[in-house]
Amino acid sequence: MKALVAGGAGFIGSHLVDELLKQGHTVVCVDNFFIGTRENISHLKGNPDFIFYEQDLTELEKLKQIFRAEKPDYVFHMAANSDIQASANDPTIEYANTYTTTFHLLECMRLYGVKRLFFCSTSAVYGDAQGQYVDENYTPMRPISYYGACKLGSEALISAYSYMNDLHALVFRFPNVIGPRLTHGVIFDFIRRLQADPAQLTILGDGTQCKPYVHVLDLVACIAHLMDNVPQGVSVYNVGDMSFSTVTHIAELVVRGMGLENVTFHYTGGRGGWKGDVPVFGYRLEKIHETGWKASMTSDEAVARTVVEFLKKKV
Amino acid sequence: MKALVAGGAGFIGSHLVDELLKQGHTVVCVDNFFIGTRENISHLKGNPDFIFYEQDLTELEKLKQIFRAEKPDYVFHMAANSDIQASANDPTIEYANTYTTTFHLLECMRLYGVKRLFFCSTSAVYGDAQGQYVDENYTPMRPISYYGACKLGSEALISAYSYMNDLHALVFRFPNVIGPRLTHGVIFDFIRRLQADPAQLTILGDGTQCKPYVHVLDLVACIAHLMDNVPQGVSVYNVGDMSFSTVTHIAELVVRGMGLENVTFHYTGGRGGWKGDVPVFGYRLEKIHETGWKASMTSDEAVARTVVEFLKKKV
Repeated sequence: MKALVAGGAGFIGSHLVDELLKQGHTVVCVDNFFIGTRENISHLKGNPDFIFYEQDLTELEKLKQIFRAEKPDYVFHMAANSDIQASANDPTIEYANTYTTTFHLLECMRLYGVKRLFFCSTSAVYGDAQGQYVDENYTPMRPISYYGACKLGSEALISAYSYMNDLHALVFRFPNVIGPRLTHGVIFDFIRRLQADPAQLTILGDGTQCKPYVHVLDLVACIAHLMDNVPQGVSVYNVGDMSFSTVTHIAELVVRGMGLENVTFHYTGGRGGWKGDVPVFGYRLEKIHETGWKASMTSDEAVARTVVEFLKKKV
Repeated sequence: MKALVAGGAGFIGSHLVDELLKQGHTVVCVDNFFIGTRENISHLKGNPDFIFYEQDLTELEKLKQIFRAEKPDYVFHMAANSDIQASANDPTIEYANTYTTTFHLLECMRLYGVKRLFFCSTSAVYGDAQGQYVDENYTPMRPISYYGACKLGSEALISAYSYMNDLHALVFRFPNVIGPRLTHGVIFDFIRRLQADPAQLTILGDGTQCKPYVHVLDLVACIAHLMDNVPQGVSVYNVGDMSFSTVTHIAELVVRGMGLENVTFHYTGGRGGWKGDVPVFGYRLEKIHETGWKASMTSDEAVARTVVEFLKKKV
């Protein structure tokens, strides 16, 4: 099977590429290094099953050329601006990199008859559910970030393209994904700041913000678990673990992982860390669990492991 | 008050412009005549309260110039590709005219501090609810047309922009809107075909497709009813009447309106008229009724009146 992985040099995408290659598939990786890096795929150089295109997905005609040349069987769409804070001051980043990328991939699938799509969506589509545990049919969906809005818009496009073109899709709504090759987010920030000043750490909000974190390897395992059984139409899954990590506990795990002691935490106060952030968030996971998949790590275990992985790499 | 009406030369937009002018507002109308026509606004020539820009909303920099120059207080977004059948073979029409127009208007509102938005959405955001009566919190929303997908994506954008910029919006989900200046749709098709051959009429589907139709003047009255009381955040309303019209009954009303007799109806058969059409559809309207607004015409009355209006205009 030939899989086109859009955003395949990115954090999640590159792990998925590794898994697909391990399973014996041919991988066509398309990335513009907007967030993805050459380093993430450097170990694949020379692999005859790995084909790489440095290409911005916002250029539709160029993307069509790739589909024409490569004729992929499956499309994995992991391309997006994943840094919500970065787009807060410039929503055009999300319009181009999160929404338009989806539209262009779907257009190519329509034009070249590709029938299977795997889409990386997000818990941000739900907006602020005020601490409720959300299942896949939670309503009303009111995203509070441009990222969440463009992902929800992408899901809507997938729904229409699926119906109009007999295209079948799995949509995975992930919470915070962490692990090797991550380039931003709270763990990364804490490590950087403690490396600069090991005596104190400023924490946005009051530290009680509470979210599930999932390790990227669990997530890739989940996609692999489901990829050979794509039902007709669009199937949406929350993916993650039922457990949570508070921001304060993440700080403690980072401090412990770095071997530090007597670190003073300063809180900026308030409910959320930054505008567009959803401070308390819980997932219902019955649907994904019914498929036989479960996360192998709790949220705290994923955080602790990620800290170790970061430090090993000497970030 | 100065209102910018995007798509103000279109079918719904031009009626809204008339209403806003009647109420004493200054209207800045922006239209590229993609579907809108010069004829729809020709009666406003010379009106000192009517300012017109022939401008495609997909050109963001040009739109910014208009916002800079006009400093509108309110934005009414009625610009879209409203012809679902036309975009079925070319979804890029919806990407540009239905989604990107929304994104660009929101960007301008963000950049120039405009805080009130009125958005023309659609029942198509719900997808095919299999005949269920849908309220505003119906889930899951799975649009089956590119039009419905781009409107749902637009609503998601409005949600995020509202939260991020303290912008307040009313979102109106309309079913089929009919009345003077309509340029396409089943009534228009039937009249055209019966003018060509008054002895017979081919009807797509089995004729039992059943939907609520709302008259454009009712809809404009609804917007006018709510426009001075926009609550904080985003408020979504289904707008229409609880009654329905079947396709066969619409054909009968057209035949009667044209004064024809002994017309043979031929049915193409099947459930839906065309791919992306939702054949049976019902609305729950409690929320809009609670505001004190009710449609003045039933669905059949709106159809019958539209037939008369069309024929008077000698379409």
